[in-house]
Amino acid sequence: MEAPIGVFDSGVGGLTVVREIVRQLPNENVIYFGDTARVPYGSKSKDTVLKFSRQIVRFLMTKNVKAIVVACNTASALALEDMRDELSVPVIGVVRPGAKMAADVTETKNVGVIATDATIKSHIYNDYIRQLNPDITVVGKACPLFVPLVEEGLLEDRITDDMVDRYLSEMKQYNVDALVLGCTHYPLLINPIKRYMGDKVTLVNPAYETAKELKTLLEANSLLNKDSKKASYNFYVSDGVDKFKVFADKVLPINVNDVNVVDIESY
Amino acid sequence: MEAPIGVFDSGVGGLTVVREIVRQLPNENVIYFGDTARVPYGSKSKDTVLKFSRQIVRFLMTKNVKAIVVACNTASALALEDMRDELSVPVIGVVRPGAKMAADVTETKNVGVIATDATIKSHIYNDYIRQLNPDITVVGKACPLFVPLVEEGLLEDRITDDMVDRYLSEMKQYNVDALVLGCTHYPLLINPIKRYMGDKVTLVNPAYETAKELKTLLEANSLLNKDSKKASYNFYVSDGVDKFKVFADKVLPINVNDVNVVDIESY
Repeated sequence: MEAPIGVFDSGVGGLTVVREIVRQLPNENVIYFGDTARVPYGSKSKDTVLKFSRQIVRFLMTKNVKAIVVACNTASALALEDMRDELSVPVIGVVRPGAKMAADVTETKNVGVIATDATIKSHIYNDYIRQLNPDITVVGKACPLFVPLVEEGLLEDRITDDMVDRYLSEMKQYNVDALVLGCTHYPLLINPIKRYMGDKVTLVNPAYETAKELKTLLEANSLLNKDSKKASYNFYVSDGVDKFKVFADKVLPINVNDVNVVDIESY
Repeated sequence: MEAPIGVFDSGVGGLTVVREIVRQLPNENVIYFGDTARVPYGSKSKDTVLKFSRQIVRFLMTKNVKAIVVACNTASALALEDMRDELSVPVIGVVRPGAKMAADVTETKNVGVIATDATIKSHIYNDYIRQLNPDITVVGKACPLFVPLVEEGLLEDRITDDMVDRYLSEMKQYNVDALVLGCTHYPLLINPIKRYMGDKVTLVNPAYETAKELKTLLEANSLLNKDSKKASYNFYVSDGVDKFKVFADKVLPINVNDVNVVDIESY
């Protein structure tokens, strides 16, 4: 089926999910929306994140998407379940695939989750992981400075190392052996996080797991695109086309030319 | 005149301006709007900041305000001039009062301005200061990590000291003797900034200067409230009433009880 997959995020972070879709599902056409005018979501309330997510879904449906990926941990945590019944197409988020992977790999039965304040407070990773295995203890930690550090480009810096040390010290205390990077920006900090946590801890990137689950979902619903002509990628944002292009060109293995502004509040 | 003054900001930072109004104009009634659902503005485009500001002004006008204070440096920089002609009441921002103070106090004729990315890129402090005195050199520096550091509560911390050191080293190179704290969050970092810059540099807080200018403006337009009954303060936000109250109670010398949510996108 040639219809595109709709992917959305509060801003640019969800492009790490698009990157995995391009790699794992190279035939699939993608429509991406980044809510750059209202970013970030991670410090906002459930009501607001749900309202914004509904507007974006209404916009994506006008593009006749065959499935929707909520490529934002906060929106997955706060809005996905409420929207699921309202949608006529399959929808997946990034939280459940990440939770599943963490539950699969842990041996100490201690799983760490780092994410935005809103995601941690929702307890959703905790709920999903313990549904899969009630013997697992989940240690959640909000890391509000990680997104601004990434956006400042301080990926390798003593300040970032210092903040990693502070935010993650609890993870060591709890003998965590699987750590979910529960915000789409965090995989960009994989080096300092790996240095601090050591080789024995598995870092779970939900973006990778989500693309795998998307493939399974499309197969199960006979929605895979069998047409082997070059896939198309269309990008929409609520603000800042040029800034978006610069970031997208760094993250994606494709050229990002087609970026348009959408008045998302009107949806 | 008993009608209230409308004050708005992208979030909670503008409360530092309200604090100065409470102190300097204790008779005046105030209606405050904080756009907590769409905060921050400092990384967004002029089009978006102007659109958001217009919605907020339309909301404030429904409250019959007699004057409007744009208590956000980014909105003052990007939206104020475009909105001025559309308004039937006097409007002032925080940029011009801060620029005037800096131009008045500098002796080395080197003025520093720290602010958000959008405010610095607008060159507005530079334009205003050099209109007042073309001999002054203005050194602008965006400090995008300062707001998240304040919101994380790291007001006295080695990480904050480290970032102050990095962001402000140019200010020392240029022999700056007046530094404008060009974002409403920055006065909360006055201690680490003062430690780094030393006693000989005047730190200009536009919030204080703005309340002074507001008083002059109200007097000139015969708009001062002569009624000496207790002033009223009403607060509106687009998200997160409880979080707002906690912050407001720390910043303001009054009890903050009356906080309501507004669907600002509908204005």
